[in-house]
Amino acid sequence: KMLGRVLCAVLFLGALQSPAEASQGHISVVLLGATGDLAKKYLWQGLFQLYMDQVSSGHSFTFHGAALTALEPGQRLMFDVLKKLSCPPDEAPNRCAVLKDQFLKLSQYHQLLTAENYTALNREIEALLRQEGLKEAGRIFYFSVPPFAYTEIARHINSSCRPAPGAWLRVVLEKPFGHDLQSAQQLAAELTGFFREEEMYRVDHYLGKQAVAHILPFRDQNRQFLDPIWNRHHVERVEIVLKETVDAKGRTSFYEQYGVIRDVLQNHLTEALMFLIMELPANVSRAEEVLQHKLQSFQSLWGLEKNSAVLGQYQAYSSQVQEELQQAQDYVSTTPTFAGVLIRSDSLRWEGVPFLLTSGKALDERVGYARVLFKNRAYCTQSETLRDAGHSQCKAKQIIFYFGHGALNTPAVLVSRNLFRPVMPKDSWKEAVSQSDLHVFGQPLSDYYVYSPVKERDAYSVLISNIYHGRKDFFITTENLLASWGFWTPLLDGISRQPLRLYPGGVENQHLLDFEMVSGGLAFTLAEPAELLNPPRQMPSDYKAIQSKYRQSPLVSAWSEDLISQLASDMEEAAVRSVARSGQFHLALSGGSSPVILFQRLARHHYAFPWKHTHVWLVDERCVPLTDGESNFFTLHSHLLQSVRVPYFNIHPMPVHLNRRLCVEEDRGTEQYAEDIVALVANASFDLVLLGVGTDGHTASLFPRSENGLEGAPTVVLTESPVKPHQRMSLSLPLINKARQVFVLVLGKGKHDITTLLSRVGHEPRKWPISGVSPSSGQLVWYVDYEALLG
Amino acid sequence: KMLGRVLCAVLFLGALQSPAEASQGHISVVLLGATGDLAKKYLWQGLFQLYMDQVSSGHSFTFHGAALTALEPGQRLMFDVLKKLSCPPDEAPNRCAVLKDQFLKLSQYHQLLTAENYTALNREIEALLRQEGLKEAGRIFYFSVPPFAYTEIARHINSSCRPAPGAWLRVVLEKPFGHDLQSAQQLAAELTGFFREEEMYRVDHYLGKQAVAHILPFRDQNRQFLDPIWNRHHVERVEIVLKETVDAKGRTSFYEQYGVIRDVLQNHLTEALMFLIMELPANVSRAEEVLQHKLQSFQSLWGLEKNSAVLGQYQAYSSQVQEELQQAQDYVSTTPTFAGVLIRSDSLRWEGVPFLLTSGKALDERVGYARVLFKNRAYCTQSETLRDAGHSQCKAKQIIFYFGHGALNTPAVLVSRNLFRPVMPKDSWKEAVSQSDLHVFGQPLSDYYVYSPVKERDAYSVLISNIYHGRKDFFITTENLLASWGFWTPLLDGISRQPLRLYPGGVENQHLLDFEMVSGGLAFTLAEPAELLNPPRQMPSDYKAIQSKYRQSPLVSAWSEDLISQLASDMEEAAVRSVARSGQFHLALSGGSSPVILFQRLARHHYAFPWKHTHVWLVDERCVPLTDGESNFFTLHSHLLQSVRVPYFNIHPMPVHLNRRLCVEEDRGTEQYAEDIVALVANASFDLVLLGVGTDGHTASLFPRSENGLEGAPTVVLTESPVKPHQRMSLSLPLINKARQVFVLVLGKGKHDITTLLSRVGHEPRKWPISGVSPSSGQLVWYVDYEALLG
Repeated sequence: KMLGRVLCAVLFLGALQSPAEASQGHISVVLLGATGDLAKKYLWQGLFQLYMDQVSSGHSFTFHGAALTALEPGQRLMFDVLKKLSCPPDEAPNRCAVLKDQFLKLSQYHQLLTAENYTALNREIEALLRQEGLKEAGRIFYFSVPPFAYTEIARHINSSCRPAPGAWLRVVLEKPFGHDLQSAQQLAAELTGFFREEEMYRVDHYLGKQAVAHILPFRDQNRQFLDPIWNRHHVERVEIVLKETVDAKGRTSFYEQYGVIRDVLQNHLTEALMFLIMELPANVSRAEEVLQHKLQSFQSLWGLEKNSAVLGQYQAYSSQVQEELQQAQDYVSTTPTFAGVLIRSDSLRWEGVPFLLTSGKALDERVGYARVLFKNRAYCTQSETLRDAGHSQCKAKQIIFYFGHGALNTPAVLVSRNLFRPVMPKDSWKEAVSQSDLHVFGQPLSDYYVYSPVKERDAYSVLISNIYHGRKDFFITTENLLASWGFWTPLLDGISRQPLRLYPGGVENQHLLDFEMVSGGLAFTLAEPAELLNPPRQMPSDYKAIQSKYRQSPLVSAWSEDLISQLASDMEEAAVRSVARSGQFHLALSGGSSPVILFQRLARHHYAFPWKHTHVWLVDERCVPLTDGESNFFTLHSHLLQSVRVPYFNIHPMPVHLNRRLCVEEDRGTEQYAEDIVALVANASFDLVLLGVGTDGHTASLFPRSENGLEGAPTVVLTESPVKPHQRMSLSLPLINKARQVFVLVLGKGKHDITTLLSRVGHEPRKWPISGVSPSSGQLVWYVDYEALLG
Repeated sequence: KMLGRVLCAVLFLGALQSPAEASQGHISVVLLGATGDLAKKYLWQGLFQLYMDQVSSGHSFTFHGAALTALEPGQRLMFDVLKKLSCPPDEAPNRCAVLKDQFLKLSQYHQLLTAENYTALNREIEALLRQEGLKEAGRIFYFSVPPFAYTEIARHINSSCRPAPGAWLRVVLEKPFGHDLQSAQQLAAELTGFFREEEMYRVDHYLGKQAVAHILPFRDQNRQFLDPIWNRHHVERVEIVLKETVDAKGRTSFYEQYGVIRDVLQNHLTEALMFLIMELPANVSRAEEVLQHKLQSFQSLWGLEKNSAVLGQYQAYSSQVQEELQQAQDYVSTTPTFAGVLIRSDSLRWEGVPFLLTSGKALDERVGYARVLFKNRAYCTQSETLRDAGHSQCKAKQIIFYFGHGALNTPAVLVSRNLFRPVMPKDSWKEAVSQSDLHVFGQPLSDYYVYSPVKERDAYSVLISNIYHGRKDFFITTENLLASWGFWTPLLDGISRQPLRLYPGGVENQHLLDFEMVSGGLAFTLAEPAELLNPPRQMPSDYKAIQSKYRQSPLVSAWSEDLISQLASDMEEAAVRSVARSGQFHLALSGGSSPVILFQRLARHHYAFPWKHTHVWLVDERCVPLTDGESNFFTLHSHLLQSVRVPYFNIHPMPVHLNRRLCVEEDRGTEQYAEDIVALVANASFDLVLLGVGTDGHTASLFPRSENGLEGAPTVVLTESPVKPHQRMSLSLPLINKARQVFVLVLGKGKHDITTLLSRVGHEPRKWPISGVSPSSGQLVWYVDYEALLG
């Protein structure tokens, strides 16, 4: 029977198209997981649509459903699906019926279980091509299978099913693509062993949604209006929202592993955001340029922090998990079903504009949209009551890409009428008839120009068409995927300790899930309602930072993020005090990785820091050019100085690079720095010195078993590090000890041993230079995180 | 009769208070212009209120009305006014009647015309004090006279009417205090010859309005709530508005000289703005601190430019002026009766927040307010239709100091209920009963906490009380006044060429006067309606910049402001092109005063400038430390670099200061700079060099009659300037001529002669170094403003 089908297809092919007509060549489409849910619901229909659209394109097609099921039952299952394929309303019923019949004849089922099955499939395709005298154009393998199966299938395709030389291979992959950066990297590395980057089409079906797919074309076609306003000077905020009314019931085995961020934010909403904020390429139809610009947009995003998100979980979720996953009654799920996330960019275009991504299950309505709200830049002189309604410039201005559902119940593009009349492609978008009673986004619908698609198309049918056309910009490249995971993973790692707000679900949620931007992050607007609380899981982070003593000096300890916040605040306070006292603040900063988070925090949360009156000095420096990524100053510049307004004259990098050479004694860099300090810093006494500690007990660039810089005059010295780059410049211990305040920051498990050791030893700077830090008349404070302190 | 009054007063004083009771001493109040409009309407009533309030204070009082009118008619006029003094509603009628009687007895009229009159007045006061055995506390002279009379009166008071040693003198001055910076300086200088700063009380009656006077106390008492939000991160905009329905009819002789900016914005609205934006002193009741902080706020304001304002004139104004000032029918007034002005601050707190000041006559309503609108920082997850009304965080948040009139018809303080419940002093402000049907500022009144004064007090009575209490923070100090004029004068000078929008007046104005913020300035929202236009006065500035040739190279010419805009845009274009080509943009900038406006324009209007990829070099430098105000780099830093994000590594000041000495040959600064150029700039060919021209034909720091740097290798040279500081460092002409583009900027009448001369001469760099600028393979463009070009 199977052979009959194949023959039938072959005969049919031959009958339908002469080799001349099929001069574009033959395309074999293999749908793996041909009887699964996604295939049933969308993919076969999408393939049928492709066939209808491209039947006269000059390409010939065969469609191969494949699954693990044996031939006969598999065939039966598959053809049950195919029989139900529907004709789109815009297609003539007669033509559709004929085409459907042809489509069925061109489709066959294969069991793909063993290596031999793949070889056989390949043989069949080759035989068909030979018999029909067809040139091969390419093969599409659509992976509608769980990700654990990817590697195996990929290996088989690569070894047995590659098309003839000159023809292309396109493998289509469905999410999830990993669950964090590491797993995504691993999966990507495996796939890269089998496929070239240009062969892989990773699907995010949101990119096939008509309103999402139209974001870039809209920006392109309306450049004239948007160019002047598509920036931080005009945009108030961007909201990207996907609200669902359904909950996770029946899907908790998947959902419990992923949660709302991995399920919706990391992929769909992030992709929509990228289309909105990326720099517009000169030519938006050049996939290469689009992908490049999108990737650059990822680079501009600030790292997410714990307080970048608010998280919730609908109340019934835990019991659903208990039931479906057979967990104990006291099992408490920490998987968020609701998230609001604040994203920021430091691009010149978007700096300061909040991007709010929100999604959740069991909410009040089903709706998805990307909304760009513009600043109100107008002042209306006439009082409201005496004002003409008209198109007042004082009304809100916004552009909304409406993904679907919700009050409009159709994909749409909305543009406030007081903004501009958008250019829309007439063949694909039509102006919608206004339902005047409807209010959306705070305004009557009549305040907008509203466009909806001439022909509503399912996302998968759009994507399958784009696979056929090789439009890679509709898919997620490996770089794109890893950039996205690189962006989201720190948040996912960070929120395991974050409390979840429980919500009842549906309209009952009321204001419970409203949130707002506070001090650089997000917080729920309403205080936690006590009756909805889980028994609180008390963690040290819930407490204020621990205050105690360490080595006879004050100790501040907390989880690292809280510790950094505290340290940054204390630094600001010291700065403000110092400026009030002397008009200046002389701050000496150390290199290393620990201070990076501190620098970022200072740059982003401390706008009242008196940078204008602050002098920034280096505690130590590596003997590399200042523009070298290894340079302490370079790190300081990237994470702090380029974001704040320290006058040029107040920035004092160490002169390690003089006369085009590095740290040469005769160039007198150390003397020069010491002279600068004496000239500018009263009594050569820094207001604040920030130090770190190495696992060997070094601090600044003062290393154990070297006397250099440990004693003698307060000066600047050249030293030797045991690790590369060996040459260093450093403030000497006596100079550090002249400071008014010295803060020592110690972070991470890796520092636990030295922290423990130091708590027991006395003043032995030759063994442990840090133990020699003891300001002669200033104050020493230790900032040690729980991991370093407690291991 | 006059003597009788004095005796009567004397007797009465004696009868009322024993010397012990009056131990605080005696205060003589002299009201100059005692029968004028202001005195009639407010001042006598204010003095009577002072008397009622302070009758038991331990001070005794006499009140001396004075004018130019002869004694008898003057007396009559004055007592006609005094008889009509009213009793405030909160005063017991009996007590008030008694006090009014006493007040009349303590008041007398003086003719003050000649020097002798002043001497006589002084004698009378002294005699009274002696007779009654009273210690003198102080004297208040209230100048309710036109400003031309100030100097004369001040001289007399200073020479004849100063109080006894140990007693204070307070002279109260009424606006106008000049009509621009120069006239204000002159008037201030004259007054300073007669009075000490602490003796002068300049009245801006807005500072006595209860809602204005409460701004600082409100900020102080609500620090807890306001501290986190009173900044650019939370405030969306600040509006300060005074709308009037009346027009200038009957007052055009005054108004035609002043206009709305001098009449209302420079003083009243600016003062209210200062109270809102100044840094809050630790103690708001310490006048010194308040005044100091207010002054600092002025320093933080950006200079106003022509496009900072939109201006209008009600249609009937010109004919009113023609009629009242007997002008010809074709006389066209250029006095604005409406203005909207955008003010910005570059303080860390307010950077980027627009302050909109608006005032006008013949508008739709009479109202005054200062409104702080906060950013909407909330996202409300529930859809609007399903949302609880409640106090949603998604509603607008604002604080309004309502000066009076308008819908509320009372001074008031309004705070959005979703913001916080403000702390208000219960003795002076009461919570108002809500008129629920009223809408103000886009929301029902019930959305606000509304407070109104327990006792409504006239501004003058508040101010007179503050004069008595010596509260100088309620008055305009000389420094304050000059800072304000210094701020406003450039705009006043600049708008003479600005077109005025004519408006019909009243509610007919509709959207005609709506304006909005565009590219750093303001513009009316509606295009100019043709039927309201004056016959257009065509000025060169209405045209695009003239494009032509000068010395065989392209010439761009326009009025200086337009020229600078064009130059800045061309520079941005060059930068974008260069970065697209090579990833970098090497820009060499000249010193001098002309580029300052250019630097500011680049900093404030060109956010798309690729600063991150720009290297900034100096064309020339003076041999002074970089932090010296004379340094070219310092100017560049102040006006450009500190506002944009050029990476530290890309900033290349000339090394004039090495080894703690300036431009010493052996320190090899020129070689070092040349080496840096060779190392970083491809082919040592700058992408753009910006030059100026001196009146002697010098350019960069290459001076006539010196061969240094004119020929030979492309290098960096030390040169001698004919003017101080003599020593300079400069790029050589051959190095400049290697550039891809050279722009020469020439501004101002002072450059007309050299511009004319250069148009006629050839290549003679030894006479005129600028004539040697001729890029070997690059492009030269001249940017010459009309004043330099046409004289």
